Amino acid sequence: MIDVAVAGGGLIGLSVAWRAAQRGLSVAVVDDAPGTGASAAAAGMLAPVTEAAYGEEALLRLCLASLQRYPAFAAEVEAASGLPVGLRTAGTLVVGFDADDVRALDALHDYQQELGLAVERLTPRETRRREPGLTPRLRGGLAVEGDHSVDGRALHRALTGAVEAAGVRLVRDRVAGVQVSGGRATGLALAGGGELAAGTVVLALGAHSNTLPGVPPLPVRPVKGQILRMAGAAGLLTGTVRALVRSRHVYLVPYGEDGLIVGATTEDRGFDATVTAGGVHELLHDAIEVVPGVTELELVETLARWRPGTDDNAPLLGPSTLPGLVLATGHHRNGVLLTPVTGDLVAELLATGELPGLAAPFTVERFPHR
Amino acid sequence: MIDVAVAGGGLIGLSVAWRAAQRGLSVAVVDDAPGTGASAAAAGMLAPVTEAAYGEEALLRLCLASLQRYPAFAAEVEAASGLPVGLRTAGTLVVGFDADDVRALDALHDYQQELGLAVERLTPRETRRREPGLTPRLRGGLAVEGDHSVDGRALHRALTGAVEAAGVRLVRDRVAGVQVSGGRATGLALAGGGELAAGTVVLALGAHSNTLPGVPPLPVRPVKGQILRMAGAAGLLTGTVRALVRSRHVYLVPYGEDGLIVGATTEDRGFDATVTAGGVHELLHDAIEVVPGVTELELVETLARWRPGTDDNAPLLGPSTLPGLVLATGHHRNGVLLTPVTGDLVAELLATGELPGLAAPFTVERFPHR
Repeated sequence: MIDVAVAGGGLIGLSVAWRAAQRGLSVAVVDDAPGTGASAAAAGMLAPVTEAAYGEEALLRLCLASLQRYPAFAAEVEAASGLPVGLRTAGTLVVGFDADDVRALDALHDYQQELGLAVERLTPRETRRREPGLTPRLRGGLAVEGDHSVDGRALHRALTGAVEAAGVRLVRDRVAGVQVSGGRATGLALAGGGELAAGTVVLALGAHSNTLPGVPPLPVRPVKGQILRMAGAAGLLTGTVRALVRSRHVYLVPYGEDGLIVGATTEDRGFDATVTAGGVHELLHDAIEVVPGVTELELVETLARWRPGTDDNAPLLGPSTLPGLVLATGHHRNGVLLTPVTGDLVAELLATGELPGLAAPFTVERFPHR
Repeated sequence: MIDVAVAGGGLIGLSVAWRAAQRGLSVAVVDDAPGTGASAAAAGMLAPVTEAAYGEEALLRLCLASLQRYPAFAAEVEAASGLPVGLRTAGTLVVGFDADDVRALDALHDYQQELGLAVERLTPRETRRREPGLTPRLRGGLAVEGDHSVDGRALHRALTGAVEAAGVRLVRDRVAGVQVSGGRATGLALAGGGELAAGTVVLALGAHSNTLPGVPPLPVRPVKGQILRMAGAAGLLTGTVRALVRSRHVYLVPYGEDGLIVGATTEDRGFDATVTAGGVHELLHDAIEVVPGVTELELVETLARWRPGTDDNAPLLGPSTLPGLVLATGHHRNGVLLTPVTGDLVAELLATGELPGLAAPFTVERFPHR
């Protein structure tokens, strides 16, 4: 019997497995197609300040803590795997187009200042001086030097290497259920027929966390996002651009040599993976409006996946109502950003039995009906 | 030595090969990836009346002759292959949006009537009664009962079967050049190293016809088109819809069980096969404007290929300036439509040495500088 069986080999599952193995625990990760869920569709924004929302201060603290850990985390993953993760520290711009958008930027700026976050309000001219690829039609901007990005797929590849180097066993099978015995999780049932007995089971199945036999009901639902990948964007943007286009959100995140990610729709359609004409049209329309040079780029990939959404947009971390089952799911829009801190916090619980205070606001207990 | 070597296994090459074999000639077709060029990207419109343009009356006659042959041609291909070709006879609507579009519809209608073509001018209400999926915002329409469509990929599959059943040899190799000896084409050089000696060589390489070693310069150039394929369109449209959206052209062609093709851009970019954000955006924007229900469809494929364009938009048929080399290329936007008549006319030349009068306006001699 191993110490820890992790259900799900996306970024969150791998991060938890890696940190747990580093604490001396024996760990296995089970996934039939690791990194092909939300991790494959993520834009890789590390942007807690530009995403800051009223009433989500605890989540902001968690996100900032994870952002702070990113440079060291990225360096450690790269050293352990010998693979790049594509961390970009060029900062993030937020831009707006009409009067409502500019009011939203002002409100965001006020809120960020109230929280003491480092952010700079820019005129249209100043905004375009930083990113000349932006349209002259924008009406205002915000600069957040500290909001970065990472290449989510590169990070997944590198983290896989780091996890293997740390002695974690990667089991290529579909998780069929959590085994329960005597009112306690005792391991994972595999679709291939086998079982994996473990002292503790970690649930890191993202949007699928709520549909696994043996798992008590969880407030996690799929939130569909469609995303585009383009090529030929070398020099078009230096950092992330987030835009409000007449109250609609779009973001453009450069990655790799000449890649650009444009995202994302937010749709409540269950586990529908359809790439729709309307979704792609909306993303292309808004991206071209923000950065006209996008017109010339090659459209290389369209993809739809599901964020693991929760009612308060924050993750589910720590013990579940089933003894022996630990939660590392529900990261909604922040999975890539929260990868380092989730690994640290959950591994601390696995190694010591104590959940650190930073994670306390994010246990499932906050949902009283569970 | 065989009688005829056809360079190119697209729809045109296969049609010529099939008809030549039926005349008793021994025939081989050489192509390393048959049906993956313009034939794969074609929307399959059989719409000479809705495409009628001033000054192209000879081309219109050829197109109408081919359209007339289509039902029998399709039935014969289906009987010979046992495969469906997806001929649709639901007719074609042309719709317009702004005042300029409506004037263009009026002009097209006048011209069609002058030519004695069967066409009906419709009010917006009548137009939408025929295709309820159309937007209420359209300003007018034309109905052409006789303009049909065919599933170009299904036709290529079936024609391949028919050609094989007729004893034509399909050589899976890239055509490297035309062999010339004593001032005469004597066969094809294959990229794999071999040679195919033939009494006559037929050039049916579409946009690539002008870049083959041994071929005299031809007035054929690549005209890039980007096209989209969607699924989930069952019941959305019954026939082809062609639209003028503020002077920009878009067409929507239903095919198969629930497929819809949206096309096409027209770009002068040489052999650039890039699917661009701008091209896809333009097609999606216009298609959604014409048929709002397109928003909900699944976007299943984006593709760019090259029409074999000529200066007068008409094909090159018959003898070339090189004895022994016969042309069946330059079909520009009309390759699928002209497939039956091209096979008939060129096979007649191959079998009898006489080019039928219908093809006379389309020899290369009409370009005096060649």
